Amino acid sequence: MTSSLSERLLARDRGALARLISWAEDGDPRFRGALAAVYGRVGRSWRVGITGPPGAGKSTLVSEMARLERAAEREVGILAVDPSSPFTGGALLGDRIRMEARTLDPGVFIRSMANRGSRGGIARATVDACDVMDAFGFDTLLIETVGVGQAEYDVVRAADTVAVVLCPGGGDGIQAMKAGLLEVADILVVNKSDLPGAEILVEDLEDAVRDRWTSSKGEWSVPVVSCSAGREEGVERIMAAVADHRAYLERTGLEEARRARRLDQIKDIVTERLYEEIWDARGWGRRLERDLDRMGPPYEVAEELLRSILEHVPGGNGTPAPAEGAEA
Amino acid sequence: MTSSLSERLLARDRGALARLISWAEDGDPRFRGALAAVYGRVGRSWRVGITGPPGAGKSTLVSEMARLERAAEREVGILAVDPSSPFTGGALLGDRIRMEARTLDPGVFIRSMANRGSRGGIARATVDACDVMDAFGFDTLLIETVGVGQAEYDVVRAADTVAVVLCPGGGDGIQAMKAGLLEVADILVVNKSDLPGAEILVEDLEDAVRDRWTSSKGEWSVPVVSCSAGREEGVERIMAAVADHRAYLERTGLEEARRARRLDQIKDIVTERLYEEIWDARGWGRRLERDLDRMGPPYEVAEELLRSILEHVPGGNGTPAPAEGAEA
Repeated sequence: MTSSLSERLLARDRGALARLISWAEDGDPRFRGALAAVYGRVGRSWRVGITGPPGAGKSTLVSEMARLERAAEREVGILAVDPSSPFTGGALLGDRIRMEARTLDPGVFIRSMANRGSRGGIARATVDACDVMDAFGFDTLLIETVGVGQAEYDVVRAADTVAVVLCPGGGDGIQAMKAGLLEVADILVVNKSDLPGAEILVEDLEDAVRDRWTSSKGEWSVPVVSCSAGREEGVERIMAAVADHRAYLERTGLEEARRARRLDQIKDIVTERLYEEIWDARGWGRRLERDLDRMGPPYEVAEELLRSILEHVPGGNGTPAPAEGAEA
Repeated sequence: MTSSLSERLLARDRGALARLISWAEDGDPRFRGALAAVYGRVGRSWRVGITGPPGAGKSTLVSEMARLERAAEREVGILAVDPSSPFTGGALLGDRIRMEARTLDPGVFIRSMANRGSRGGIARATVDACDVMDAFGFDTLLIETVGVGQAEYDVVRAADTVAVVLCPGGGDGIQAMKAGLLEVADILVVNKSDLPGAEILVEDLEDAVRDRWTSSKGEWSVPVVSCSAGREEGVERIMAAVADHRAYLERTGLEEARRARRLDQIKDIVTERLYEEIWDARGWGRRLERDLDRMGPPYEVAEELLRSILEHVPGGNGTPAPAEGAEA
């Protein structure tokens, strides 16, 4: 079963790709073996994350980016991730279908994914989906996330290049936005550049980039690029900025960046599994439920549980467990 | 130190309250002892969560709800939680200050809290802040969260009554919204009822409530209540619905609902501490970093780590650890 699905993936069977992404989304236990079987082929796609506040025109931009990639005869996988599904889930797929001619092009694969509510699960599932799309053989992956919260950052963390999209008229939130934006963005996009205020927004963002340059980006200076995706104007500048960032990373430490992301990916998987294992499989949740009424204030109960759970867990360097359990 | 801060809290010192909320927000280790010292006084405030998409008018509604509570000589604590701080953090406090006369009223306490980026930390900090505000002695807590994602749901989970606020003109996302909305809402509020489309939105939501009634809410039938907070119209109907929901819960199982929330709270604390303890304090993160390049595909690595970490963890019922570690 599993091996045949991975074989079909490597033979570029789109049905197999769709099925494997569903397994990733559902946390299906068969995903693990399937990924292992194709993992040697992972690492050739360039992964671009696109995020920003609602209304910035991300879907149109992604559609245009895909069009340009296709014009250059590159194959594109698009993953539209919506961590906020309780409010917007389902609408996304409609947007995608309405979106465009792109869906009829066999060189483009489009998939949307909604949050299933598990703790950190959407970020893990996004990385998994990117891994199988990568193994399938797309040149470029565009990972669009609709929203502005912590969950969306966790999602775009899966990308090699992160583009944050803004548009004029966002108003006085801009000042407040800058700090956080610059931490995640490799490229700042001012979309809807034909609207009033676009030039001022570009200048404000350029000032912010200058003022807040930090060594966390190395020598990379975050460009502010404007376009009007709806009018098909200037999107080639965004793609050029993506190519620049790729060349920069390949010159200065792509392997290291990807290694750091792989560490995060493994920590996410372990943390998600620990939660299931401890609370459900090993019955600590049932113990807590049973004993709650005889127990004290929440932190006292939590520390007591933590001590019992960790009592015999060794240190990661192979040293024995600390005698007193979880005390820092 | 700690004991004096808790004593000052019980003596209704607002400086002490603000300081304790900062401790909760920062994860300060002194919070634990302080909360334990006042925990006997927790449980008298009614906690109302207010959430909904951006632009629905939540801040104005919260301000009006506070005004009505004050008119009834009830004291109000307002907690504005912004889990999406990278984009909107900081703007919130400005909104609050601009907001109103409420800030000058000694019967109202307003505090905003931003996400510090820790995994699940904002939900844990929200509950902690509510606990100290509750011990301080407010009659009503209004917990407003700006946004629509998973993080916001985790935040409003801290409330006794959850109001989801919508307004006309949200467009065709409504159909998709209904399912998720009804799962979290105890009350559906249609704000800006003077705008075109308000009546249709009310009818649509009423249909959705009827169609999707589930036993998870028991006998409670989610009311759809319209108001125009900006015009000070109809907010008393929202407060009446809150009172109805309170009476319903007090009659049918408030203790049980609060107990379930306390279980979640303790699980959140333990999970957050487990993450720190395993990856940082016990050095499993450093081990993973060291060995990553000699290891296999991500899920294989994760399962191997999970087995090593959990090898000696007993079951919650006191049984010894399974011989083969973490295999389900």
